[in-house]
Amino acid sequence: MSLLLIVNGSGENWGPEPWLRRFHERLPGRRIEIASDQEPAREGFRYAAVWKPAPGYLARCKGLEVIFNLGAGVDALLKDATLPAVPLVRVVSEDLTKRMTEYVVLHCLMHHRRQRMLDAAQTCGEWAAKDQWAAAAVRVGILGLGELGQDAAGVLVRIGFDVAGWSRTRKTVAGVKSFAGEAELAPFLARTDILVALVPLTPDTEGILSRKLFAGLARDGRLGAPVLINAGRGGLQNEADILSCLDDGTLGAATLDVFHTEPLPADSPFWRHPKVTVTPHNAADSDAEAISDYIVAQIRDFEAGKPLLNLVDRKRGY
Amino acid sequence: MSLLLIVNGSGENWGPEPWLRRFHERLPGRRIEIASDQEPAREGFRYAAVWKPAPGYLARCKGLEVIFNLGAGVDALLKDATLPAVPLVRVVSEDLTKRMTEYVVLHCLMHHRRQRMLDAAQTCGEWAAKDQWAAAAVRVGILGLGELGQDAAGVLVRIGFDVAGWSRTRKTVAGVKSFAGEAELAPFLARTDILVALVPLTPDTEGILSRKLFAGLARDGRLGAPVLINAGRGGLQNEADILSCLDDGTLGAATLDVFHTEPLPADSPFWRHPKVTVTPHNAADSDAEAISDYIVAQIRDFEAGKPLLNLVDRKRGY
Repeated sequence: MSLLLIVNGSGENWGPEPWLRRFHERLPGRRIEIASDQEPAREGFRYAAVWKPAPGYLARCKGLEVIFNLGAGVDALLKDATLPAVPLVRVVSEDLTKRMTEYVVLHCLMHHRRQRMLDAAQTCGEWAAKDQWAAAAVRVGILGLGELGQDAAGVLVRIGFDVAGWSRTRKTVAGVKSFAGEAELAPFLARTDILVALVPLTPDTEGILSRKLFAGLARDGRLGAPVLINAGRGGLQNEADILSCLDDGTLGAATLDVFHTEPLPADSPFWRHPKVTVTPHNAADSDAEAISDYIVAQIRDFEAGKPLLNLVDRKRGY
Repeated sequence: MSLLLIVNGSGENWGPEPWLRRFHERLPGRRIEIASDQEPAREGFRYAAVWKPAPGYLARCKGLEVIFNLGAGVDALLKDATLPAVPLVRVVSEDLTKRMTEYVVLHCLMHHRRQRMLDAAQTCGEWAAKDQWAAAAVRVGILGLGELGQDAAGVLVRIGFDVAGWSRTRKTVAGVKSFAGEAELAPFLARTDILVALVPLTPDTEGILSRKLFAGLARDGRLGAPVLINAGRGGLQNEADILSCLDDGTLGAATLDVFHTEPLPADSPFWRHPKVTVTPHNAADSDAEAISDYIVAQIRDFEAGKPLLNLVDRKRGY
């Protein structure tokens, strides 16, 4: 029986060939092939490693026992109603987690330390007045306390921020104030100066970053107005609401790594908005070598009768 | 006997009055006064809390038992050859340490994550190519592993940077490669991509941030060329060398919080240099309330016969 099919989702501009090399190196002598979702289906492969295959394609690849997603988010995959009912494994890698923490810490510090004000002062040759509070005076709220949120929260606490997290089900992280479920979203927002969005994109969270949510953020913080950092998914955000909330002061600033349309179109008002920092969906650019190691380790465990880790709960959506 | 004299160094634009209020609140009923170094000396005070008094002034204030510095650096004070031979206490405060760590972590991350390249891309409406390494690929070198350097190093290690530190005498910090003394300065520099200067300013360190030192930094790092972050003292740096090293590529970028002349003059080339980030000596703007607590706690300990903490070693210079 063939081993691993690397499925090239043709809607994305990525190269499957380097993945073929990576898996061949790690699984020498075993049959590994690339298929495009524009070609006829392939049958008889035990595993598929995929990135955004066209809906319906995997259903036609009979014989699959496990599907491995090659990136972090499974939101695109779960939109395929015909997805085979086999275990679906998401990427949890220390490398990816640490990169996201770098991004979250960098951008929380940039807002807290007023880097954009200092940049503007430098442009004018102006020695800005000293008026800097300690991190303890700034309340960071992490929307989504999964692997990524928990790691970032730990470093933010170590730096001295006043950190809270909200998640669907209660999570306990040392030093982090815990909020859970619908009922605790409002009090979580009401004590948040910097909102960091790290929730998965699901039907429940689509468009959650909206005027309604921003209006619930703290109005009495040291930053003057609350700030949004979206390092999750573009689909979480209502982009028109973000712009209008920046313009009327409901938000003081936004750092956005993800967008509805990526690359962000040249005519997007985000590019030149003075309160917006745009990054090119590089918050946690995953290391393909680390992901390959992870998938191969899971294949070996699976074949040794051990349980697969980090399975997607399809009802929950992540 | 009078208790505490707050000595107003007239060369600096700072207000001693708030300090009078802070010390009165903490030492009710005891005699506390402000003196200017332009006035006649005051005698009979047990303690002096000072910021850059004119040389010779403290020698004329007979009866002092302890001198407390109100800021972090004692370099200005130690230039006074007539300074009374009484214990001299420097500020070590958790608040100040944590603020410095915020600054160091922010600016290491900005260089590592190429924030200035991304800023430029945003200005052009350009979705930059993804090409981001993990923090583990970047070697941070902390010149000066005292209280400040050790705390910053701890957070940088937690984030994933490859961290080393150099100090006069060997210091052990978990996860940090340790270099000590003159003989180990060259190997320390040779493995450093981001140099963070946190050494005290002493006759030994004056002008240490020079072309000679920059030429010894790593040339094979992921950032393309080594980077300087000076959050110590302006006197550590040779400013002409920094500019010429930025221009000829010996340095790839510099973040400077301190300068020979502060505020930085409007005609300084640092303001508009495309590779320089200027901040207004606000890396660790100390919290006067926390420093007041610290000094009063030491006075109480001293009067209870307990040892004073964080005494300056005048030979060592800090």
